[in-house]
Amino acid sequence: MDRKILLNEKDIPKRWYNLAADLPTPLQPPLGPDGKPITPDMLAPVFPMNIIEQEVSTERWIDIPEPILDILYRWRPAPLRRAVYLERFLKTPAKIYYKDESTSPPGSHKPNTAVAQAYYNKEFGIKKITTETGAGQWGSALAFACQLFDLKCKVYMVRISFDQKPFRKIMMETWGAKCVASPSNETEIGRKILKEMPDTPGALGIAISEAIEETVRDTTGKTRYSLGSVLNHVMLHQSIIGLEAKKQLEMVGVKKPDIVIGCAGGGSNFAGLAFPFVQDKINGENIEIIPVEPKACPTITRGEFAYDHGDTACMTPLLAMHTLGHAFVPEPIHAGGLRYHGMAPLVCQAVVEGLMNPKSYHQLKCYESAMIWAKTEGFICAPETSHAIAATIEEAIKAREEGKEKVIIFNYSGHGLMDLTGYDAYINGKLHDYELPEEALKKSTSVLDGLPKPSTEKSGKW
Amino acid sequence: MDRKILLNEKDIPKRWYNLAADLPTPLQPPLGPDGKPITPDMLAPVFPMNIIEQEVSTERWIDIPEPILDILYRWRPAPLRRAVYLERFLKTPAKIYYKDESTSPPGSHKPNTAVAQAYYNKEFGIKKITTETGAGQWGSALAFACQLFDLKCKVYMVRISFDQKPFRKIMMETWGAKCVASPSNETEIGRKILKEMPDTPGALGIAISEAIEETVRDTTGKTRYSLGSVLNHVMLHQSIIGLEAKKQLEMVGVKKPDIVIGCAGGGSNFAGLAFPFVQDKINGENIEIIPVEPKACPTITRGEFAYDHGDTACMTPLLAMHTLGHAFVPEPIHAGGLRYHGMAPLVCQAVVEGLMNPKSYHQLKCYESAMIWAKTEGFICAPETSHAIAATIEEAIKAREEGKEKVIIFNYSGHGLMDLTGYDAYINGKLHDYELPEEALKKSTSVLDGLPKPSTEKSGKW
Repeated sequence: MDRKILLNEKDIPKRWYNLAADLPTPLQPPLGPDGKPITPDMLAPVFPMNIIEQEVSTERWIDIPEPILDILYRWRPAPLRRAVYLERFLKTPAKIYYKDESTSPPGSHKPNTAVAQAYYNKEFGIKKITTETGAGQWGSALAFACQLFDLKCKVYMVRISFDQKPFRKIMMETWGAKCVASPSNETEIGRKILKEMPDTPGALGIAISEAIEETVRDTTGKTRYSLGSVLNHVMLHQSIIGLEAKKQLEMVGVKKPDIVIGCAGGGSNFAGLAFPFVQDKINGENIEIIPVEPKACPTITRGEFAYDHGDTACMTPLLAMHTLGHAFVPEPIHAGGLRYHGMAPLVCQAVVEGLMNPKSYHQLKCYESAMIWAKTEGFICAPETSHAIAATIEEAIKAREEGKEKVIIFNYSGHGLMDLTGYDAYINGKLHDYELPEEALKKSTSVLDGLPKPSTEKSGKW
Repeated sequence: MDRKILLNEKDIPKRWYNLAADLPTPLQPPLGPDGKPITPDMLAPVFPMNIIEQEVSTERWIDIPEPILDILYRWRPAPLRRAVYLERFLKTPAKIYYKDESTSPPGSHKPNTAVAQAYYNKEFGIKKITTETGAGQWGSALAFACQLFDLKCKVYMVRISFDQKPFRKIMMETWGAKCVASPSNETEIGRKILKEMPDTPGALGIAISEAIEETVRDTTGKTRYSLGSVLNHVMLHQSIIGLEAKKQLEMVGVKKPDIVIGCAGGGSNFAGLAFPFVQDKINGENIEIIPVEPKACPTITRGEFAYDHGDTACMTPLLAMHTLGHAFVPEPIHAGGLRYHGMAPLVCQAVVEGLMNPKSYHQLKCYESAMIWAKTEGFICAPETSHAIAATIEEAIKAREEGKEKVIIFNYSGHGLMDLTGYDAYINGKLHDYELPEEALKKSTSVLDGLPKPSTEKSGKW
């Protein structure tokens, strides 16, 4: 029995999968400031047109250009692994598989879309890409990708993570990018927020506003913005994870998993693994699909399904998604990549449809799970990934109690080698749980009151 | 053409290779304080007897116990990769392969022997292992291994690295070990050195003395010391690297490489890859074998071949090796794992035989090479590994100039994700070259004057 299920290069998926083609209820369009659906032109100052075309596409399969594959081959196909040591420790009859996305140079799944986005920007004649980053996984992935395509890269990093993870900045600089803490003094919105809240830990929503501001103020038209999650084209690029995983499960004789798990901040690593299985579920397979989020930022589990902006300064179109309100600043939990007020519209529409079973966990439980992982499987996971592990352990114990031989697969979205301060806090008993009080939630979602409402109709099949 | 050459679990080597069986001139025995060869008993307070037996063995092949393999399967067999992107960048006709030892949980080749040593200690009834660490690669590898075998672990980490690489300590603690900066106040030798040189950056030799002191003062007999390099049993355990690599080269039709390269501090990652090829060279193959060291700590390239202690406080037996003198404190270069005054006797005897072509490089050239690596292959290497890359680039350029299609293989001993301060210094122009002045070398090797001299006889075949 092999613990690593490996694909050869020739077996890498040559096409991405687009869930938008199969959703039982079609995705609701992004709206402009006037409440009317936006047109592709309106996104043109922010994204190159070839990416906008992917964003609005409902084609089921989209070819992966060869220059993108040529870069992905540096670490893809990624291994699927069997967590036999965790299984033994839990004495579970469940078979636990995990897709190991930590093997990329920046250490997470993020380069799957960073490379694609850098490629399309380059093709479109763009010279510089701006972006935001939470924990630094995305920023370093884009820095890596831009370096390989000879593009400039500027990263606004959420201040709390900038301070907690100093090595991420060096990593980005090693790949030739520039990285500043957000809110920064480099943008109007940054200066405004710093004046109002000089001690703010920052938030992804703020960093997005800063990056977009830098993009649209470049009058040469050679700068574009790049988002590492949330949007449809990002989910598309990440589908390579699940497509590989399906081939690998087949290699060990698994026709379909019983449970698919991924942590969810903006939704991209979760969707990357899950969407190809969501297609199977839509086609009749019985699969439980679990996005996992922190109780400190419980977007799908407690947020409203509403039209909201993706950023704090309301520069983005309105997206139909679960949200805690665009001005929400989550507590400074260590899983910086999960500190986002919104969620990918494709994920949210699938939640509305009842295709998913979202869960949330406390920070302490997640670190406990990460420590069990380090002591059994031996690897040190990212704090984001620990949320998926917490859910996996819970499901494996349930399988033991039910005496069922379930197949669980989760996405090991990244390693935690750059995020050790959280482990330090845990080991020394300095880590706290956070849970959003009901009052604070009401207040933070009150910004949605005047905005249009999306349809919550569903096909009723799940 | 696959860039990753992958072995299945069933193809993992089941036996280690011992170069001591094939050396044309036999290894010279370690000597005690009286200048006479030491007996296994004399090592018993420091190492468990089953490891001592391996240390003195001249068996060519030694079986790898199944419980060790069960742990190694977490990341082994390790990938062999083809550095096609570097080849393209250098426009070289050379084929560059590298054995990727960065995929282990602690991120280097070190757990290959840490796991074996923890196993043998556990088998022997030991409860606690002490050790030293330079850059932290070894300390975290032993922490990882001890955790899996439920042994206590105490690590003395060279102060300069302790300060430069704060995350290494957290990593060790995550795996349940205790880590202190060396020299420390926890041992007599540590207190003595701190009194004499309160600002010393520390050195591996000092940290070894401290770890041994803690071992021998435990009167219960349940503590032993573990060394991560230099000794014969360590080279033995690391031979799995080269044995895998030979199988992988065969898979792509390479009968033998032309050049084998590894960075060399104490010699273990270099020997791990090189020794199985040294066997081929002894058997008549034409292979150039290059250990690479820093110019700041040029043990093989400028040190004396002499009998010397492995540690600063002269607690270890005398070993026949190249040395800069046991009191030598190298400049604080970032490649902490290469800051050692001595070298594995097996490597040194092979150097004396003329089987190897040692080289040394400046720190700046190594970081330049690391940056080229990050910009082509995409991965961020350990500062130690950058020495092997510097030599590889030089050989690949030579192949281009000679128009020869050589096969080069080097050991990618570890990733640099925990060592980013060196990259920061390089990027910001704050990195300096060091080269040991002739006078300082003379002074540091003067401690060898009163000690016995090893034979420098060789078979004359190379």
